[in-house]
Amino acid sequence: MAVNLAPPNPEDLLPVKGVALGVAEAGVRKPNRKDLLVMRLAEGASVAGVFTQNRFCAAPVILCREYLALARPARALLVNTGNANAGTGEDGLTRARQACAALAAALDCDSSQILPFSTGVIMEPLPVERMVAALPRALADCREDNWAGAAAAIMTTDTVPKACSRQLFIGGKSVTVTGMAKGAGMIHPDMATLLGFVATDAAVSRAALERMLTQAAARSFNRISVDGDTSTNDSFMLIATGAAGTQRIDDPAHADYAALAAAVTEVAVWLAQAIIRDAEGATKFITVQVEGGKTEHECSRVAYAIAHSPLVKTAFFASDPNLGRLLCAIGYAGIADLDVSRVQLHLGDVLVAKDGARNPAYREEDGQRVMSQDEITVRVELARGPAQSTVWTCDLSHGYVSINADYRS
Amino acid sequence: MAVNLAPPNPEDLLPVKGVALGVAEAGVRKPNRKDLLVMRLAEGASVAGVFTQNRFCAAPVILCREYLALARPARALLVNTGNANAGTGEDGLTRARQACAALAAALDCDSSQILPFSTGVIMEPLPVERMVAALPRALADCREDNWAGAAAAIMTTDTVPKACSRQLFIGGKSVTVTGMAKGAGMIHPDMATLLGFVATDAAVSRAALERMLTQAAARSFNRISVDGDTSTNDSFMLIATGAAGTQRIDDPAHADYAALAAAVTEVAVWLAQAIIRDAEGATKFITVQVEGGKTEHECSRVAYAIAHSPLVKTAFFASDPNLGRLLCAIGYAGIADLDVSRVQLHLGDVLVAKDGARNPAYREEDGQRVMSQDEITVRVELARGPAQSTVWTCDLSHGYVSINADYRS
Repeated sequence: MAVNLAPPNPEDLLPVKGVALGVAEAGVRKPNRKDLLVMRLAEGASVAGVFTQNRFCAAPVILCREYLALARPARALLVNTGNANAGTGEDGLTRARQACAALAAALDCDSSQILPFSTGVIMEPLPVERMVAALPRALADCREDNWAGAAAAIMTTDTVPKACSRQLFIGGKSVTVTGMAKGAGMIHPDMATLLGFVATDAAVSRAALERMLTQAAARSFNRISVDGDTSTNDSFMLIATGAAGTQRIDDPAHADYAALAAAVTEVAVWLAQAIIRDAEGATKFITVQVEGGKTEHECSRVAYAIAHSPLVKTAFFASDPNLGRLLCAIGYAGIADLDVSRVQLHLGDVLVAKDGARNPAYREEDGQRVMSQDEITVRVELARGPAQSTVWTCDLSHGYVSINADYRS
Repeated sequence: MAVNLAPPNPEDLLPVKGVALGVAEAGVRKPNRKDLLVMRLAEGASVAGVFTQNRFCAAPVILCREYLALARPARALLVNTGNANAGTGEDGLTRARQACAALAAALDCDSSQILPFSTGVIMEPLPVERMVAALPRALADCREDNWAGAAAAIMTTDTVPKACSRQLFIGGKSVTVTGMAKGAGMIHPDMATLLGFVATDAAVSRAALERMLTQAAARSFNRISVDGDTSTNDSFMLIATGAAGTQRIDDPAHADYAALAAAVTEVAVWLAQAIIRDAEGATKFITVQVEGGKTEHECSRVAYAIAHSPLVKTAFFASDPNLGRLLCAIGYAGIADLDVSRVQLHLGDVLVAKDGARNPAYREEDGQRVMSQDEITVRVELARGPAQSTVWTCDLSHGYVSINADYRS
């Protein structure tokens, strides 16, 4: 189903020195499924994270925030699929703490040095005993060249594992950035996808890493939308192990910051787009580009109005150039003083609406030609300022309804 | 498909003295279809209207606002289906003016005394010549006992005509309130449905009528959502002919205001709920009741977060008590200081979440029992204040995707 997205070739996923990944079958929700992942970090690794803004955030999100605030060096990330451990109250926190404590005991560190992540069904008790029982197998499986296995283990309704790598040189030394993500539904810009992990063996301070993460999230996971549902479990983590032996990047003014940040953003953008390509039921990959706004914020409002409109999304699914629905979405995006007579609308290379109305030269067959493609760019020109914003989304298909009507069964 | 909604029995639709309705086939979009409606008003009738907030509002909406601002007595409403005359720029305005001028000539009045309404496909030129050619037939058809025919003529993707009547006594005289509405998709609270018309033969000043209309809209058409798309053409009109011979209600302090306003609101609520019952692809009618908020606004935000969530709506379609999705929606509704540990969630009579987490006594079969019903109430208790809000919505089904993927073909 995924739109122009193949599973990663394991050889293309470059190990990150200082990050070892191991998976195991814990039987969290379904049998015969790798559903537990441990990511062990070398000593001295820095970790930064951004998390969902949902008030009903999951127990592991609460714990991650708490543990990161302590600023102790993280030694491992523990990820399970099949159960979100959200909407589970105090009991959910207790179970998440138990899982962290068990891994901490095995690694001879403090519980607060284990960062937990969960994804799956909401409001079900986490089967922590089964997870703890599977930990030794996951630890035994840990190795640096296991990103492909890890990317597969964190999937839920994803149909394709999502991971990619980039390399760059810092101070003459080769540095790797490798990332993976999962997520196919409950995807909304505020904040990330369900789970995204990007690691590098460059050396970066926690503060610089946090800045790099925020910038990357703003250009990647915060620019996508499948269904407008902000998950309870969204977490995007950036890890820097320093194992490549490069000079430590302590702040954004450092000479090497920009190059590494660009590589991290590139990986994050690739992952975010991969999530849209593999979105639940997606048959089309849509880029919505809004230009000429007074602020980036108002451009984003217009872009998301289009990206969230079920009417627009079903028209894309049908390859039907019912393009008045795009104008309609622009009109209700909340720009109170929008002068619609200055709005231009392009679909691919076709000028559909000129000065706020149907372009007299527009021909239905031109719109039809673009709508039939599986990658489509919508471009809106507001002609009221210098700002712009781009978001990525997908169509709304029978597949989306089927997947979400049947998800738990 | 409609959920517990039968076509109105023509005998149950009571004529409103001073409102004559005539329909005709104009061939606006499809042949052999009554798609043109004229509503003639007795001299001295008052008319008030509220309209879409969409910046890309349709040409007839722009004209209605302009004509109503002139405060000349309206003599007729002219409605077409099949074409929204939106996203059509200056040319759309010209065509709408031509249609009004033609009807004005036939009724020997000024163009500004004709209020135009359109619904249908966006960004297509209005076939005004065919409409004008059909006007004599619509005028010849005008009669007071024709609400059933009119309600059928204004349908687009509606499967059931929507109309109802109420009667009350004012100063010993019988007064009728009859209304009709159309709309099945592109339905969002800000503002109304596509088209709603309610008429009474009571005598009401324009100012009092506007107040009555705003109050009724706030409790009816502004409390429903199908897909979150605010149409370009939403219009809700309230007409008072005065033909019943009752004393004129000049302001909200008048002794008879409350009783008439209650009847108008009752009709509007019935119509708004009928739109949800007949919403595109709907198989379930959902009432979302949020209580205990600090303000009505924050209660509405929570209610609409639930009502707009595709994940919640597909779960209702599947009769799947995947109720964590409800907590998730509550969590991202934008109440920044929400204490989730005080939130209670009821599905019908079942307490699903207690103090922000799964109720220990909750059993899946209880949730399943309620989810299987075709009318379901979700009740959320926020426990932070005295305010409440109720909205009505429906599920998201394969039918919705099919209807909107195929609408124009």
